[in-house]
Amino acid sequence: MTGNKKGVCFEIALAVPKWGENRGDEREGAHCVDVLVDELRKNGLIVERDDGLQNEFIKLAASDEVIGRAAAALQFRKPTYLGMDLPFEWEEAEAFIRLPDGSLFSWCERFHCYNHIIYGIVNTAESVVVLRSDSKEENWKPGESLLLKLEAMDVVKEVFPLHDEKKRKQLLKSWAMNWSDVTHQPIDDICAYYGMKIATYFTFLGMYTRWLLFPASLGLVVQLMDFGSLQFAVLPFFFMSFISWVVLFFQFWKRKNAAISARLQIYNSASLECEYRSMKPEPSLSRFPSEHMRKQNIDRMREKANFQRQEWFTWLLRVRNDAFIILSIICLQLPFELTYAHLYEDLGTDVLKFGLTAVYLLVIQYFTRMGGKVAVKLIKYEKFDTAENKANSLVYKVFGVYFMQSYIGVFYHALLHRNITTLRQLLIQRLVISEVIENLLENAIPYLSYRFKKYRAVRNKGKRDKESSTGKSRFTRVEKEYLKPAYNASIGQEIEDGLFDDFLELVLQFGMIMMFACAFPLAFAFAAMTNITEIRADALKLLAMMRRPTPRAEETIGAWLNIFQFLIVMSICTNSALLVCMYDREGNWNLSPGLAAILVMEHVLLFIKFGFSRIVPEEPAWVKAARVKNATQAEQVCTRQLLRSLYGDEKCFDEVRSHVSKKDA
Amino acid sequence: MTGNKKGVCFEIALAVPKWGENRGDEREGAHCVDVLVDELRKNGLIVERDDGLQNEFIKLAASDEVIGRAAAALQFRKPTYLGMDLPFEWEEAEAFIRLPDGSLFSWCERFHCYNHIIYGIVNTAESVVVLRSDSKEENWKPGESLLLKLEAMDVVKEVFPLHDEKKRKQLLKSWAMNWSDVTHQPIDDICAYYGMKIATYFTFLGMYTRWLLFPASLGLVVQLMDFGSLQFAVLPFFFMSFISWVVLFFQFWKRKNAAISARLQIYNSASLECEYRSMKPEPSLSRFPSEHMRKQNIDRMREKANFQRQEWFTWLLRVRNDAFIILSIICLQLPFELTYAHLYEDLGTDVLKFGLTAVYLLVIQYFTRMGGKVAVKLIKYEKFDTAENKANSLVYKVFGVYFMQSYIGVFYHALLHRNITTLRQLLIQRLVISEVIENLLENAIPYLSYRFKKYRAVRNKGKRDKESSTGKSRFTRVEKEYLKPAYNASIGQEIEDGLFDDFLELVLQFGMIMMFACAFPLAFAFAAMTNITEIRADALKLLAMMRRPTPRAEETIGAWLNIFQFLIVMSICTNSALLVCMYDREGNWNLSPGLAAILVMEHVLLFIKFGFSRIVPEEPAWVKAARVKNATQAEQVCTRQLLRSLYGDEKCFDEVRSHVSKKDA
Repeated sequence: MTGNKKGVCFEIALAVPKWGENRGDEREGAHCVDVLVDELRKNGLIVERDDGLQNEFIKLAASDEVIGRAAAALQFRKPTYLGMDLPFEWEEAEAFIRLPDGSLFSWCERFHCYNHIIYGIVNTAESVVVLRSDSKEENWKPGESLLLKLEAMDVVKEVFPLHDEKKRKQLLKSWAMNWSDVTHQPIDDICAYYGMKIATYFTFLGMYTRWLLFPASLGLVVQLMDFGSLQFAVLPFFFMSFISWVVLFFQFWKRKNAAISARLQIYNSASLECEYRSMKPEPSLSRFPSEHMRKQNIDRMREKANFQRQEWFTWLLRVRNDAFIILSIICLQLPFELTYAHLYEDLGTDVLKFGLTAVYLLVIQYFTRMGGKVAVKLIKYEKFDTAENKANSLVYKVFGVYFMQSYIGVFYHALLHRNITTLRQLLIQRLVISEVIENLLENAIPYLSYRFKKYRAVRNKGKRDKESSTGKSRFTRVEKEYLKPAYNASIGQEIEDGLFDDFLELVLQFGMIMMFACAFPLAFAFAAMTNITEIRADALKLLAMMRRPTPRAEETIGAWLNIFQFLIVMSICTNSALLVCMYDREGNWNLSPGLAAILVMEHVLLFIKFGFSRIVPEEPAWVKAARVKNATQAEQVCTRQLLRSLYGDEKCFDEVRSHVSKKDA
Repeated sequence: MTGNKKGVCFEIALAVPKWGENRGDEREGAHCVDVLVDELRKNGLIVERDDGLQNEFIKLAASDEVIGRAAAALQFRKPTYLGMDLPFEWEEAEAFIRLPDGSLFSWCERFHCYNHIIYGIVNTAESVVVLRSDSKEENWKPGESLLLKLEAMDVVKEVFPLHDEKKRKQLLKSWAMNWSDVTHQPIDDICAYYGMKIATYFTFLGMYTRWLLFPASLGLVVQLMDFGSLQFAVLPFFFMSFISWVVLFFQFWKRKNAAISARLQIYNSASLECEYRSMKPEPSLSRFPSEHMRKQNIDRMREKANFQRQEWFTWLLRVRNDAFIILSIICLQLPFELTYAHLYEDLGTDVLKFGLTAVYLLVIQYFTRMGGKVAVKLIKYEKFDTAENKANSLVYKVFGVYFMQSYIGVFYHALLHRNITTLRQLLIQRLVISEVIENLLENAIPYLSYRFKKYRAVRNKGKRDKESSTGKSRFTRVEKEYLKPAYNASIGQEIEDGLFDDFLELVLQFGMIMMFACAFPLAFAFAAMTNITEIRADALKLLAMMRRPTPRAEETIGAWLNIFQFLIVMSICTNSALLVCMYDREGNWNLSPGLAAILVMEHVLLFIKFGFSRIVPEEPAWVKAARVKNATQAEQVCTRQLLRSLYGDEKCFDEVRSHVSKKDA
């Protein structure tokens, strides 16, 4: 095998099945895996084949130049020493700012490039190539992608990124196993190793946990101290404090997020590329102004009408889908949850209660999964300008389902019984269950499934060894990683990754502690504690328990921020209601139904006022499109030329020289 | 006189005093006005001197080239046929998109250029030039601006833009005197003639009036029809309808505003220039990456710390000023207004009431003027990144004063008496007074003052004619325009123009009709009517009664939008309170003080939640500065070169040719 130098860091692996017996004979033409390896080598990649117990693995690495040429083909916009972002070109590589570790591309960019290279392998010959696998033969037609073909043939089982052992161990030491300051995290290194999205999550988690210490200690004081004659003012004061705290926190989070993305921008240049590539360039620039203008005007009118039609259509579709989701949550899920809550109350014995809860837990598993599937199906027909918007739309829909599921029981108890003690018990129950047990499961299940897979692999190997006698395969590092679970979302895996579940957990916890804070001020302290363990547990999970996740470039927490904001508003309302319940123990306070109706109407109108702007965009689609198009056009005209003229003077002169000599001749 | 061709359109005029006798003798050196005229001619302007009755006027016009060179010096960014905005250069003028009327520059741009030229006249000689006026002689030192000097000497009384008679008459016909569809307005022409800001105002006024027709007719129906057994639900329904209407309206206004600015962008390219010019360019671009990077990193850290310090300082100053304004409104204005409202109630006879109101009106005149002055003084010490932000800050502060003044009396009556009939009377009174009378005054006072000035001028002329015998002066068009009042704001004239008063009127009317709509649904119809007259009255005022205003480039209604939004939230709360009053005629509904306290707290917290994000910016100053700097740097490197290479191939070749021949030699 060539290209297997020491010190090469393999970053991507392909899992292909092992052919125990058929490997040897090469008389009947090339085996399809061999074809693949040859093609990968031809494309400049460094390839190493690794025999595992159950599968064979093709590990890939690439030189800077190979990655650079792919980056140029993908038109990655990267910061240059000129102070502006330009599409990457390999010939002018020295114009582009290098990362702090001296490399030219971040992991996120390299991953994109690898994908571009390996999925870009097509049959360039004019004739069909026969791909032979163990069981069947298929034709690789000209122009067809080899990897997609092999994936369809089930030969390539998976393409997955590999951990970089050196960096992983460093991170394990400096991050997951660093117990000195538990909210401090090496964000830059996380970003370099995992990409922007995961770094943003951990930045948020760290800042949130740090800020949580304030209401946690305040909650402890409120719960444990006696303020004598001022006791009646303690809860309202606590209410005002934690709402002000949370408003401040999210404003400062937005600032921190802006600062972090500005600082880590350098790891994240690939994110710009998608936005630009989706716009088609203008075919040609007319040199005749008046004609160009007339043509442009007509085009513009037609385009505008087109955009407007499309915008309204998309909007209607979105409204329909959202209405569908909301209605089905209210008509299907709400009665179900209320029935459970009611039955739970009515049942006498603990055994029956336990049985009911078990049935309920099983059913909601099914329910949420179905909800997620419906949501994914619905957003498939909606149009989104970016993949991020699509993901956000899914998040909103799925959150609706979880919101009902998590809080409706608590609301039921709070409203029906107006009994703070049972509410408090319920909250402790829920928090303990959702936090401690879920956290354990979240880490235990992947680990156990990994151990089981490993065990099965070894056992199978043992069986096969008895049958045949070729004992050359070892249990390699790549195979171990292949057996580890991927960092996937529980719902909508095509669109979201594992962060979806982590954020969902965070958001549900936030809602639970905020919405009922006045009934149970200790909840903040509880959340602070679980979050401190969560930071390191999530780090450990990512570093030790999971396959390396595919890097994602999102710089913000996206839809989750809006959900947090929604929960803040909700918690202002619910805590007010709670306070009313708590101060009105004797039931002396009364509210005329008319007054209550007007108050409800007022709240609905305030909700409309502040919610409506999210439904209708402030900028018409055609204005936005025109803006983006202008920017793209500017780019295309400007950048190549600029780069050449600054870093490739010689070439320019050559061209002009030949031009001049032609003229002279 | 040279340059006085027929058909030249003079666009700017300078008013200088007339020197009856001294004009003739030129033996003692040049008179300062003659020096000025000479210098203006030297700078390429077309100059015409016009003798008026009281003053002499220097009318200025300029050829395209003169304006173009000034535009290039000012680095106006204009759209090109390349599809991107580039700084203007006269040599590549054909690359820039022309306006629909065929000219290269909009009035707003030309006005900036005129100012740049006439204020840019400095003494380029090495010696001092003696400027002789009637009364005194002063030295014009090298490097000093002539016009500023003459303004300081009180020789140049005013620089003011002139109406373009042809276009003015066209607009008068197509706009102010066009009675066919009263909400339709030729926005493009208004933008071309008056600039973006005034066009935005009229777009808003037109759309607002058109949309007002819906709640106006709904209000009529609610007021006049009897719904039998459903009567009790009419007002809540009306409440829900007009709040939904107003929320929809402002969302669609934002869309319309975006669309209008995209369409009229071409008239408004000068607005981009300010933002960019304020950033200093990086002195030089290092060609040595690593060194450059190290230097940049240190610089960046220092800059960041600097920005953060400055940001917090500015923020603290702003909070202090706002607190000062709010406190003084609450501590000074509120008691005063309440005293008036209370006294007005207590006084028995109508004569005393009338006297009190007269005194009150006099005092609030003084009060608001003082408030405006304090606000202007306060914001002088605040730092703003754009002039628009400064204007917005003034708007917020002054609006606070007017808000108290306009509504506190109405609130007092509504809350104290809980009597809907008197409230309704008060509203009718206020609306009639504020709308009809103010509208009349607004148009009558400028007209009367203009007539008076004209009359005085003619009388003075008569007197002088008797004394001397030189009767060559006529009452010219320029002098008539000079005597017309300028389109100025009543408060903070340095920062705002006359639109301030127009918007203030609109906002106060909006608050009046929205906040008490449930008590008086007819108010919408009333407002619709007054607005229809307002559209044409304002147009007439601008076209016939006022000097041409200096063009302004603001594309949005700025701070007023936020004030409108604030008033919407206020009106949700006040209307809820009104409904409670109206449905609770017998006083049966009661609210325990504890419940009331919790409700107040809830509203305060909702207010904090939604208001706080306006106080702390989402993006740290250093991030924003870095972003702008990057863009500027990109511009500077890119554009000149690009323009040359596309439209100045010949020159480029010449340069390269000489380079090549040098190399060969």
